[in-house]
Amino acid sequence: MNELNMSMLADFYEFTMSNGYFKNGFYMKNTYFDVFFRSVPDGGGFAIAAGLEQVIEYIKNLHFGASEIEYFRSKNMFDEDFLRYLADFKFTGDIYAVPEGTPVFPNEPIMTVKAPAVEAQLIETFVLLTLNHQSLIATKANRIVRAAQGRAVLEFGSRRAQGASGAIDGARAAYIGGAAGTACALSDMLYGVPASGTMAHSWVQMFDSEYEAFECYCKMYPHSSTLLVDTYNTLKSGVPNAIKAFKNILVPMGIKNFAIRLDSGDISYLSKKARKMLDEAGLECCKIVASNSLDEHLINDLVMQGARVDLFGVGERLITSKSSPVFGGVYKLVAVENEDGEIIPKIKVSENVGKITNPHFKKLYRLYDRESGKAIADQLCVYDECIDDSKPITIFDQNATWKRKTLTDYTARELLQPIFRNGELVYDAPPLAEIKAYCKEQVDLLWDEVKRFENPHSYYVDLSEKLWEIKNGLLESVTKA
Amino acid sequence: MNELNMSMLADFYEFTMSNGYFKNGFYMKNTYFDVFFRSVPDGGGFAIAAGLEQVIEYIKNLHFGASEIEYFRSKNMFDEDFLRYLADFKFTGDIYAVPEGTPVFPNEPIMTVKAPAVEAQLIETFVLLTLNHQSLIATKANRIVRAAQGRAVLEFGSRRAQGASGAIDGARAAYIGGAAGTACALSDMLYGVPASGTMAHSWVQMFDSEYEAFECYCKMYPHSSTLLVDTYNTLKSGVPNAIKAFKNILVPMGIKNFAIRLDSGDISYLSKKARKMLDEAGLECCKIVASNSLDEHLINDLVMQGARVDLFGVGERLITSKSSPVFGGVYKLVAVENEDGEIIPKIKVSENVGKITNPHFKKLYRLYDRESGKAIADQLCVYDECIDDSKPITIFDQNATWKRKTLTDYTARELLQPIFRNGELVYDAPPLAEIKAYCKEQVDLLWDEVKRFENPHSYYVDLSEKLWEIKNGLLESVTKA
Repeated sequence: MNELNMSMLADFYEFTMSNGYFKNGFYMKNTYFDVFFRSVPDGGGFAIAAGLEQVIEYIKNLHFGASEIEYFRSKNMFDEDFLRYLADFKFTGDIYAVPEGTPVFPNEPIMTVKAPAVEAQLIETFVLLTLNHQSLIATKANRIVRAAQGRAVLEFGSRRAQGASGAIDGARAAYIGGAAGTACALSDMLYGVPASGTMAHSWVQMFDSEYEAFECYCKMYPHSSTLLVDTYNTLKSGVPNAIKAFKNILVPMGIKNFAIRLDSGDISYLSKKARKMLDEAGLECCKIVASNSLDEHLINDLVMQGARVDLFGVGERLITSKSSPVFGGVYKLVAVENEDGEIIPKIKVSENVGKITNPHFKKLYRLYDRESGKAIADQLCVYDECIDDSKPITIFDQNATWKRKTLTDYTARELLQPIFRNGELVYDAPPLAEIKAYCKEQVDLLWDEVKRFENPHSYYVDLSEKLWEIKNGLLESVTKA
Repeated sequence: MNELNMSMLADFYEFTMSNGYFKNGFYMKNTYFDVFFRSVPDGGGFAIAAGLEQVIEYIKNLHFGASEIEYFRSKNMFDEDFLRYLADFKFTGDIYAVPEGTPVFPNEPIMTVKAPAVEAQLIETFVLLTLNHQSLIATKANRIVRAAQGRAVLEFGSRRAQGASGAIDGARAAYIGGAAGTACALSDMLYGVPASGTMAHSWVQMFDSEYEAFECYCKMYPHSSTLLVDTYNTLKSGVPNAIKAFKNILVPMGIKNFAIRLDSGDISYLSKKARKMLDEAGLECCKIVASNSLDEHLINDLVMQGARVDLFGVGERLITSKSSPVFGGVYKLVAVENEDGEIIPKIKVSENVGKITNPHFKKLYRLYDRESGKAIADQLCVYDECIDDSKPITIFDQNATWKRKTLTDYTARELLQPIFRNGELVYDAPPLAEIKAYCKEQVDLLWDEVKRFENPHSYYVDLSEKLWEIKNGLLESVTKA
């Protein structure tokens, strides 16, 4: 993966279409594209937006060098004028996006791109794959962390990730969603996601006895000893040997920060038995880590069964979002500018009503109840509208317009932030730990009904009266035609 | 992802264990690790091994530079001697692996690493993630391609891939498994996976009318026009406009190589209707491409319903192996060398019988019936055994040793090839198209019973008498202890 030019990570049709726009004079036509998704993975009530920082890096580095141009030329499909244009390519548009860590809902833009047609088209694939991937993992991590009810969750899944960036960027996204850290050293070095680790079965097997393996580890890493106790027999051999090693090495040093790890068998039963054995040995301070194909449902069950687990290591089911491994973000044209610079809304109709897009260049507001602080609804407006939260606002369901509600005591926060303006980065990306804290804070502002795993309440994403009228006008004109 | 040092893509514990091996004098102790998996994704009868070439690149480039050493130093956990050792790190061991594209089965090594403990440990994470990821996607692609029964399958999933390498390396793996090409331009440029593409809905929306959009595309790309016909209404508008554009632009040029693409609605119904309309217009040559959340089961159904689809574009369900997104390859210690260079087999016991490893440094043979050419069974032997296929061989089920079968008319092929010897690359990786052809040829040598999707026959992976006795001896000594 070294020295790859990610500008080439695009569907081939982005280039053939762009060549077409270029040749037909559309390439300077300003277009507006929204990134949005239609449903939340795992049937959840909300997703966590992530990946913006990697999109920013990509946009900053967009370029096509000699070897890329040569590649296109070899296809005999591209105009030399277009290739010259590509050689000088630079993103000159505007990008708006919700900050990473924001809880987001179906059918609202999490990013809006305003740019000349060619530029907007060329970035589609990378923008989608980055936001889709990281939002997927951040969303899954958030579910798992909520199931753990305050116990720490560590991301342990690199070896089962779908490729190198699946591991590296996945660990970053999991951290945003609430994981306390990762096993992946490169994510730590690159992004500052705290890396930690315990030991593999091979460590235990390398020594003549399990006890020697434990003793050696405690001597090497007295301040971070987590001993894996299931190589031979958890309760008969592993836990007794761990207790012996802790008592012989760490207790005399006055160290109390150590743990055992259960990686197989019935975690609920074994953790209770192990807890009892540790407590009887006077090692109440010893923590118990559990791993072994965990996810939010198994963790939820373990917590309900009273399992004595202090920390969960979660592997493949987090790093691939195994039960729901696709985040279906799409990139749809919502408006174009005509010769006079007027913004003309566009709509994509579909026989499937759920696939009809929300047209136009839009603003996205989140409305919070002033008293409880909780998020009540999101409101999509036309770009030139403003919500003045000192005045009452009436929101309504776009599919059942008679369902109306007037809010009086609320605050309105605009979610889409300017990221690039005329190709210049105007956004100061917060440090990763701040993103993580913001995510937690914002999730805490959602009602429990939106957060439950089974049949969560559908959070309201409504249209302003003006936007609703534009959408309906477009629908009528398209279906008439 | 530019300029990342993949040597750091490792679980943090690989480094802490390695530091421990180093400090305790184990680091020069030769160890043997097997990569194997325990079950096939989607409940299939076999998997396709892939990813070896990226493992080779990684091994060749293994190194720890100044910034990596500084990272480790900042942790205050690592010996300075170990850090000096890391600064000069080079892989010096042997690696054996099955060639990419080989059909492989549970519980047999697809790779064996023989190396000093530190070296073998440090490469675990990257080796696993690479083989796991690419084998997952190659296996899924092979299922989808078999369901398409000769119709071409294109990989279209970059935007839904789990990160950049998920898209880039995933397209490579899909090609090995049988996909005819990809939409991903970077996979084409980097690996030579043929890239192609059609158009997005945004192309159609950019023009004042659907017909203008089609006409313009046919003029631009007369030799590869695939028109997306579902932006407004497939049968009322899309197909008629496509027919008009083909007849006005391409037919007069004598071009017969064009297609329409269906991307929504009932593909079976629409493809039959569209076929009829095309044929009635005299465009029997026009191909029909279908996309829209396809996988092996939907394609199987479409074929059974007589859908008139010539080519399938498959996105998210291939690039993430959506229905089974984890390939569970593991990396287990199977032997160590003692001071005299003697190879001591090791076993990992588990309360779950299915998780007990096959110990020892091994050879892997595939036995083919001479008459039909079909693969009969795989045989695991101790490294110093040889199968002479001019003599009869008796194979037996390791869990039911009375089930025996004597083969007389067979050929034996050794599957594990030497890749590195003493750190030197000794393997000439075949070109990608050859890997793809080899995969098809080898899958054709499997019985249909192994290849079916539902309840496939369990292919035999047997142990030699000698290996079986060693395994049982180890099990007895461990459980006695």
